[in-house]
Amino acid sequence: MTEHMTGFVSFVGSGPGDPELLTLKAVARLQSADAVLFDDLSSAVLGHARTGADLVAVGKRAGRPSPTQAHVSQLLVEYAQAGIRVVRLKSGDAGVFGRLEEEIVALRAAGIPFEIIPGVSAASAAAAAAQIPLTRRLSARRVQFVTGHDVTGDLPEQRNMAALADPDATTVVFMPKRTFPALAESLIASGLSPDTPALIAENVGHPDQSLTRSTIAELAARLQAGFSGKPALILYGPLMDAE
Amino acid sequence: MTEHMTGFVSFVGSGPGDPELLTLKAVARLQSADAVLFDDLSSAVLGHARTGADLVAVGKRAGRPSPTQAHVSQLLVEYAQAGIRVVRLKSGDAGVFGRLEEEIVALRAAGIPFEIIPGVSAASAAAAAAQIPLTRRLSARRVQFVTGHDVTGDLPEQRNMAALADPDATTVVFMPKRTFPALAESLIASGLSPDTPALIAENVGHPDQSLTRSTIAELAARLQAGFSGKPALILYGPLMDAE
Repeated sequence: MTEHMTGFVSFVGSGPGDPELLTLKAVARLQSADAVLFDDLSSAVLGHARTGADLVAVGKRAGRPSPTQAHVSQLLVEYAQAGIRVVRLKSGDAGVFGRLEEEIVALRAAGIPFEIIPGVSAASAAAAAAQIPLTRRLSARRVQFVTGHDVTGDLPEQRNMAALADPDATTVVFMPKRTFPALAESLIASGLSPDTPALIAENVGHPDQSLTRSTIAELAARLQAGFSGKPALILYGPLMDAE
Repeated sequence: MTEHMTGFVSFVGSGPGDPELLTLKAVARLQSADAVLFDDLSSAVLGHARTGADLVAVGKRAGRPSPTQAHVSQLLVEYAQAGIRVVRLKSGDAGVFGRLEEEIVALRAAGIPFEIIPGVSAASAAAAAAQIPLTRRLSARRVQFVTGHDVTGDLPEQRNMAALADPDATTVVFMPKRTFPALAESLIASGLSPDTPALIAENVGHPDQSLTRSTIAELAARLQAGFSGKPALILYGPLMDAE
């Protein structure tokens, strides 16, 4: 009763785009939601919501002026304060580069209970599509995720270039296209071989998904010359040329 | 026809243990499998297999002498060579510390086609259960996964302690219990504060899941004094005391 009056928010990782990579729990939460706040998702994912649920686009790519993060958090609080069950969809895994924390802080401040349903990361999906594991015994003992795109749109300051230039790690760069040439230059300056195998995965989990194998230097040169707006991940490290 | 004659293997990430964190695609592959090779999974996960499917325990914790990795790979090839649809379940995400590559190499050598269905990582599930994101704008810009347990059972040589001792990263250590005291000592020697927030998550995704917040030094001292055999992950970094 109390929970109903204050509302409840389920943050749901919706996976990389393929609606078959939703979890059973994500489907269950969508089916019972009164409102679904989403960024930019396929109709196949939203199709799990019940008829009559409010479907609210709040994303940066929804084809209208981008709402600020503060505005998204405020909307989420307002929907929950109506005493309803709200699903907040986050692409991939909810907790990785999804600005989840800002929304959690807003809910806590408003006293609204919530849960987090983890999802399949786009990084896992890209590697799986390329038939590559993210780790390898002895030679790829560490896997790391970074973003190429901070809140200003620039390459986030990376205080630890040695971590990113480690030849024994698999690195996955989220939102990499605009800043990868600068990152690759820093990596090479820090001692990583320009011939380090790299893979760019575009539209992972969508029917027009594409995977291109390359090296960090070659990929940087190609992106420097121009690129499409398709969402992408770049993976680099010792496994990326496995086949 | 050709595919039927040579068999087909689906590597399926089964998620962290909670059967509701299976993906729709994982369920579909289980339902259509002729044989399911698994390590150590709940009956709720295996319950998705059709009646009559071969359920084959090949895991290290299956309560019998551990088959070697070579033996597991060989079994996988033999099942597929019978011309059937084989599901090879891997806990968590299939591509993270699951020795996936060795099995892929064996299939390729035998000319057997396969696919990889990614799953929810135990790292994502542990963070979600603790209501913590894995990344934070500005202060936790990198997330990394390492294993505390290599093929010999020892702490794998980590050539890049600066990466692991980075105060601006979230680090998730898989299979950490036996070697975390040694790792924590190295981290502190490399400059990471002993008071760095840490979280140990045991039996993630199972009904008896437990989460304990601590610091790296305190957690190391506690594990040094003894520990249970429950599977665990340790997460440390600036987000681990968020609440």
